[in-house]
Amino acid sequence: MPNLNSWILTDVGNNVRKESLFLGHDDLGVADCTVSKTSLKGGLREGVDLVEVTNGNLTFSVLPTRGMGIWKGSYKGIPIGWKSPIQGPVHPMWVDEVDRGGLGWLKGFDECIVRCGLDSNGAPGEDVIIDNNGNAVSVDLTLHGKIANLPAHYLEVIADSKSGLVSIIGEVDESSLFLPGLRLRSKIKTTSGSNRLTIEDEIINLKSTPSELELVYHCNFGQPFLEEGSKLLVPTKEAAPRDARAVEGILKIDEYMAPTPGYVEQVYFYDLAEDSDHRTLVSLKNSAGDKAIALRFNKSELPCFTQWKNTTAMTDGYVTGLEPGTNYPNLKRFERENDRIIRLDPGESHHCQLILEVCDNHEQVEALEAEINSIQSKSRPVIHSKPQAKFSPM
Amino acid sequence: MPNLNSWILTDVGNNVRKESLFLGHDDLGVADCTVSKTSLKGGLREGVDLVEVTNGNLTFSVLPTRGMGIWKGSYKGIPIGWKSPIQGPVHPMWVDEVDRGGLGWLKGFDECIVRCGLDSNGAPGEDVIIDNNGNAVSVDLTLHGKIANLPAHYLEVIADSKSGLVSIIGEVDESSLFLPGLRLRSKIKTTSGSNRLTIEDEIINLKSTPSELELVYHCNFGQPFLEEGSKLLVPTKEAAPRDARAVEGILKIDEYMAPTPGYVEQVYFYDLAEDSDHRTLVSLKNSAGDKAIALRFNKSELPCFTQWKNTTAMTDGYVTGLEPGTNYPNLKRFERENDRIIRLDPGESHHCQLILEVCDNHEQVEALEAEINSIQSKSRPVIHSKPQAKFSPM
Amino acid sequence: MPNLNSWILTDVGNNVRKESLFLGHDDLGVADCTVSKTSLKGGLREGVDLVEVTNGNLTFSVLPTRGMGIWKGSYKGIPIGWKSPIQGPVHPMWVDEVDRGGLGWLKGFDECIVRCGLDSNGAPGEDVIIDNNGNAVSVDLTLHGKIANLPAHYLEVIADSKSGLVSIIGEVDESSLFLPGLRLRSKIKTTSGSNRLTIEDEIINLKSTPSELELVYHCNFGQPFLEEGSKLLVPTKEAAPRDARAVEGILKIDEYMAPTPGYVEQVYFYDLAEDSDHRTLVSLKNSAGDKAIALRFNKSELPCFTQWKNTTAMTDGYVTGLEPGTNYPNLKRFERENDRIIRLDPGESHHCQLILEVCDNHEQVEALEAEINSIQSKSRPVIHSKPQAKFSPM
Repeated sequence: MPNLNSWILTDVGNNVRKESLFLGHDDLGVADCTVSKTSLKGGLREGVDLVEVTNGNLTFSVLPTRGMGIWKGSYKGIPIGWKSPIQGPVHPMWVDEVDRGGLGWLKGFDECIVRCGLDSNGAPGEDVIIDNNGNAVSVDLTLHGKIANLPAHYLEVIADSKSGLVSIIGEVDESSLFLPGLRLRSKIKTTSGSNRLTIEDEIINLKSTPSELELVYHCNFGQPFLEEGSKLLVPTKEAAPRDARAVEGILKIDEYMAPTPGYVEQVYFYDLAEDSDHRTLVSLKNSAGDKAIALRFNKSELPCFTQWKNTTAMTDGYVTGLEPGTNYPNLKRFERENDRIIRLDPGESHHCQLILEVCDNHEQVEALEAEINSIQSKSRPVIHSKPQAKFSPM
Repeated sequence: MPNLNSWILTDVGNNVRKESLFLGHDDLGVADCTVSKTSLKGGLREGVDLVEVTNGNLTFSVLPTRGMGIWKGSYKGIPIGWKSPIQGPVHPMWVDEVDRGGLGWLKGFDECIVRCGLDSNGAPGEDVIIDNNGNAVSVDLTLHGKIANLPAHYLEVIADSKSGLVSIIGEVDESSLFLPGLRLRSKIKTTSGSNRLTIEDEIINLKSTPSELELVYHCNFGQPFLEEGSKLLVPTKEAAPRDARAVEGILKIDEYMAPTPGYVEQVYFYDLAEDSDHRTLVSLKNSAGDKAIALRFNKSELPCFTQWKNTTAMTDGYVTGLEPGTNYPNLKRFERENDRIIRLDPGESHHCQLILEVCDNHEQVEALEAEINSIQSKSRPVIHSKPQAKFSPM
Repeated sequence: MPNLNSWILTDVGNNVRKESLFLGHDDLGVADCTVSKTSLKGGLREGVDLVEVTNGNLTFSVLPTRGMGIWKGSYKGIPIGWKSPIQGPVHPMWVDEVDRGGLGWLKGFDECIVRCGLDSNGAPGEDVIIDNNGNAVSVDLTLHGKIANLPAHYLEVIADSKSGLVSIIGEVDESSLFLPGLRLRSKIKTTSGSNRLTIEDEIINLKSTPSELELVYHCNFGQPFLEEGSKLLVPTKEAAPRDARAVEGILKIDEYMAPTPGYVEQVYFYDLAEDSDHRTLVSLKNSAGDKAIALRFNKSELPCFTQWKNTTAMTDGYVTGLEPGTNYPNLKRFERENDRIIRLDPGESHHCQLILEVCDNHEQVEALEAEINSIQSKSRPVIHSKPQAKFSPM
């Protein structure tokens, strides 16, 4: 038996799509790990492909039909994700992005990790593009772009019995004639018994002309990591409220409320502190301090971080979004004016690594906190009490 | 064998969706009744679920994929419904509601009974909502809302051998983050040999904040109930034409024409007469007076009634719509100004019962007419010859 | 065995859709011919029906799910079609025509022959229609209309062992209440060993009132027919550039460039020369003159011809479109002002024949050239160096 085993689940070029598959640890050659692929049934989820990975401790499900998003997971029985007021995951056929003034994306939104991009993300609104006739024309961008509602044309499971790595590889194209041509090549991996999953994304400009790229990882967590008294641990150089509503909560920027009917979202933009290799991390810690989720990434790849507080009632979607990105999720025009759009030359690619880590005891949480404090110790945080022109459209 | 038997056909929470099922009267324990479920094939109908119920005399088909609408039926061989110029039923994937200035809903419209709602119905146009940032923003509502193009996440058949009731139960959510969260729980039932089907709908506000509700039952009938000389029997307190076009036909408000190429629709708004328990009914009677369809409902649940005449050529959709509703199908803003929007508190629900009854002989039709006359006798009808400010935007 | 054999693959009226079928030459009774039908798998193509026809020399695939377009083909191993920057064919569920300012059609565009129409085609933009209330209202037409993103409700294979003809017959309706009602009945046929396929289309007005019709056959070719030094052979009465960009290339109107990153499209409108029966043809000849594609049609059916040069980089969609049509693909309003909209009375139909022919040696190409020269010899070509008011909106 070789070290590396591979199973191709979808390959449009060869007209392949497996409806279902189960790979046990014997098949994979990796202890405690299994991978199962199913096609979901009924309602808005009919026809959505789901790949579920377990490593013995950590379980997570990948949605090839929704741009390789991560639907939800669990760690030693602790749920990871949130409860959106829809019964997802939602097949993109039900998501009309232009509806409701460009907010139609919300009709598919229930994942734990959803990518916003690739040509654009952030608030819906006007942008100016060069059309097929070489003329500048106005178009209405829709909320958070297209990638979460596009299906993978390629999907593969790779198991490495030597390193113990199990990887799900997917490719999704956001590309058409006269429109940008960007390919997401995503590898989502874990190892036996680990409390981590790692996303390695490569976004490639398929076209022969330079292309813009916006990418935000909208990572969403509800109970039990989010609860009254939960805290965001976040090594900060600079932070600012997005708007007047966020100003109201600036003194408790790192604290979370209990589910609160009628709560209106508060958003904060951060320039994070980092280590000498530009590595940083943020963490959502529960009230007792015995559970935490951490996101690890590198500011050279993902320089921006956005915190979205939406501690509304449980039924309405009690959630916080921790959002590392190449940009802040503002209207694309504003991000372009602030030089936060990535420009990819023909064939060029941008790489992002994002690690999700789960801690389920005091010791782990304290170690995480110490690590964050150590990064923080290199910077004196500036928390603005008012929106800043470089972060928010005024 | 217990009195109650139940079969779950769709249950998203448990990843269940049965492709097909046949229940004979032995299975159901109800004489003369059968229920069959299929998934339709080809063209615009590919993948549409259809549940067909027969009780020996009355047959009708329910569309879980289209918000639990009733596609068509027949009574002792007499067809119930109409011939729309599309080959439906249409899977919602083909219906782009925002297309054609918000009229895209028409591309899926061929049912006998289709619900218009739940957040809005009526003419497309501008409305102002409160967005996720707490700001008032303008959105373009689309014709007749979303519920008819949303699929059931739960579908069940219940047969009660004691009462002889066969019920189809379906649940459809119109809900997303930052958008209204309304659940339709519909029970559609009949009994052995009956000339009636009964719709019992419950619409629940799933959110923690108050919600608006608009619901119109767009009940559509063509031949043989609709023909030259057919009449609408309608106990009336007050009625008015919608616009100048309807004014042209006001003297023959209750009469129907033969199929007429180029006919432009005429719409009339009614405040119906009712009995002491607020019960009322309307009926479409054929020319010979030996066939009639009746709709029975309660004005405390469905206070508004709209008559839509569209006696165009057969090929173009010869039809009349009899439309009991919580409101008139005007632009939502106008209905709000006239206090005809239902407001549901968190967790609160609105119940509607609508009975469709078929008469196929003179005696039954005369009895129906007598019943309507008896209700009419309590009110002196006022038929306005001009549009009224409370019914129509001027 | 009878001369005529027929296989029905889709028939919505009878709830029929065959997932797959293979017909060998024995089944068909036609030497060298086979027909296979599959349902494609994965990515954007999941659920797209594909009918592949071979006649021994010529192979082509028909897309019933995309309005009976022709995806691609090959002749003795030479590929026919182009490489679009999407991995198609694309199921219409992924195509939101109103997106991107009405350019959403591009997200499904990768066929060799795609029909643009039927109610409208050409550039997106405003038009005025009469709505269901008899009022003139403004609507936004989307690029190239709807027919390419509508599925066939009827699909049949007919083989005639006597004539050796194998035909694929499909019907697609573009029809709804209050919207135009047009039916495409298409027969796509070939014979044993032929270098031709013939499209016979009939477009019928299903409604009881007159209807407009626009139809352009967007025929798209890349390598090896298109290459540096390829030429368009086109018998011309009159030709003009569409705009300033096309003016730049007017001196080389009939020549093609190598793949050129950043190339901006050039479009030319033609009034073709014709023979005494109004027959005409155009041809794309490769640089060596040993390969050519020809399109044969009749100006009484397809009076307009448009040449679309898009010799951009290979990765971006190196292609030329040769586009016979009932009109030029301008905004519909402009075509109406210039009397180039077909008006169909109730029940009336418009017939179009389009023949695609492939030549793979010098002799055939020279014969083609001679034929075109002979037609040209009856007219003296006028090539305008500037856009003309009758062809282009100024």
